[in-house]
Amino acid sequence: MMAGLELVSASRCFDGEVRKYCHLSQSTKCKMAFNIFLPDTAISQHERVPVLFFLSGLTCNEDNMMTKGGALPHLSKKRIALVTPDTSPRGVGIEGEDDDWELGTGASFYVDATQNPWKSNYKMYTYVQREIQQLVYDNFSVDSSRVSIFGHSMGGHGALVLSLRNPGHYKSVSAFAPICHPSTSDWGRKQFLAYLGSNEEAWAEYDATELARAYDGPELAILIDQGDSDKFYSSKQLQPSHFIIATESNRRPIKLDARMQPDYDHSYWFIQTFMEEHIYFHAKHLKA
Amino acid sequence: MMAGLELVSASRCFDGEVRKYCHLSQSTKCKMAFNIFLPDTAISQHERVPVLFFLSGLTCNEDNMMTKGGALPHLSKKRIALVTPDTSPRGVGIEGEDDDWELGTGASFYVDATQNPWKSNYKMYTYVQREIQQLVYDNFSVDSSRVSIFGHSMGGHGALVLSLRNPGHYKSVSAFAPICHPSTSDWGRKQFLAYLGSNEEAWAEYDATELARAYDGPELAILIDQGDSDKFYSSKQLQPSHFIIATESNRRPIKLDARMQPDYDHSYWFIQTFMEEHIYFHAKHLKA
Repeated sequence: MMAGLELVSASRCFDGEVRKYCHLSQSTKCKMAFNIFLPDTAISQHERVPVLFFLSGLTCNEDNMMTKGGALPHLSKKRIALVTPDTSPRGVGIEGEDDDWELGTGASFYVDATQNPWKSNYKMYTYVQREIQQLVYDNFSVDSSRVSIFGHSMGGHGALVLSLRNPGHYKSVSAFAPICHPSTSDWGRKQFLAYLGSNEEAWAEYDATELARAYDGPELAILIDQGDSDKFYSSKQLQPSHFIIATESNRRPIKLDARMQPDYDHSYWFIQTFMEEHIYFHAKHLKA
Repeated sequence: MMAGLELVSASRCFDGEVRKYCHLSQSTKCKMAFNIFLPDTAISQHERVPVLFFLSGLTCNEDNMMTKGGALPHLSKKRIALVTPDTSPRGVGIEGEDDDWELGTGASFYVDATQNPWKSNYKMYTYVQREIQQLVYDNFSVDSSRVSIFGHSMGGHGALVLSLRNPGHYKSVSAFAPICHPSTSDWGRKQFLAYLGSNEEAWAEYDATELARAYDGPELAILIDQGDSDKFYSSKQLQPSHFIIATESNRRPIKLDARMQPDYDHSYWFIQTFMEEHIYFHAKHLKA
């Protein structure tokens, strides 16, 4: 138990615990931090509880969702664990890694980079899909057959991509203001060019709209909330309509509920407002 | 409307709005920021809603409670406004004001300082009890006859002191891990000496335990939660037992519910866990 995991802090919260751990990652070749919320049933190891992974957006780290998302009372009630990974490697010594909030630190876009200077550390697809999940299944009293994923903005993109590329792995997926068609928006093209190179064919496997068109796995339930006063929505960085059209062209296996929320913006004020509904959506699919 | 108030930001949240304002304060002679949550009924001015003031602890500013307290879903449901003032003047040019996290910036202890170099700006008792309240009553659709107050740690001290010194003004008061007897703990003695001088008789009017002994106003309902894994509790900075004994010696007008919460610490993880109960406690007394 806990091999390679270093406990940084632990606090009791909502009849459970919020803990921060760090570990040396094989995928990103650096120290990575994550938070986990464990309800008491998981702490006492009375049962293996279902688990949710949440991917945060640009500039965020492992703390934003845990601190500002308002998820814990609902997770406690439904006895679901929550894991919040960081958004990128940090301090790996790549020139310029901290210079641009849209690239490098805090801006991995959850891809496995293939280009220099990023390719040796920026393996966040593998980190989130394989390494951190295995760590969590091995070290905590969670049920690896009841797993769902969600995220915000760049992390909403990450959640959609991971679920569409791994049919049957996640019981459900949801997103707040996700980047839906990154191959065609500034948020996406800039990073894919840097991380994946100029051959745009390589981008499709990290593009939720392209993946949704081709998805043929088991039925996948998706919930998306988008605020209509979100300035990144108005500036066409998010493009939920592209994703909706793609799922409609392929409607059998994807069950999408995409909702516009009047007057809400891109912030955690928006996220926390609809958090309870997202948790209950996942709880239903996780049989929690 | 809004004379002297500058709107810094506004976001929709839980069928209401979180707004940040700043204004030039007459009490502290500097620019002060505060946040306010307004439920829709107050925004549309259909009715004047009750209002809660929350005072934060050492090192905090106007954001901590609003961001991490988990209060907004419950305030929205009960249609109560929330105001979160800053914890001190900032950037007023007093030598050393930013050097010590326990004194100066972020550490006003909500007193009106009488000593140099603090006395011209550190008038936070007057700022919270008079200036910001009048500003809020004048500029927002809130009911100045339905007001309650609460706080955390140094801010719990502030809330207790303000309510005990202004009988009848607040319908209820509550606190998370408050500093209860500052004249006798390091948190308190150090600051009172600096702000109020060495005559300890002057300290009593800012000491909740001393004030509770002498209180003879109308019945005052007080709710206190204290975590028993709080390191500031173990190191005797908080001393809730002193406050409990003082209220028991004077039991008629004070109706105290003081609860120890096993395994909880001093953080916002603790605060958010019991926030719903504090909001409903105040809602009952505010007839919300």
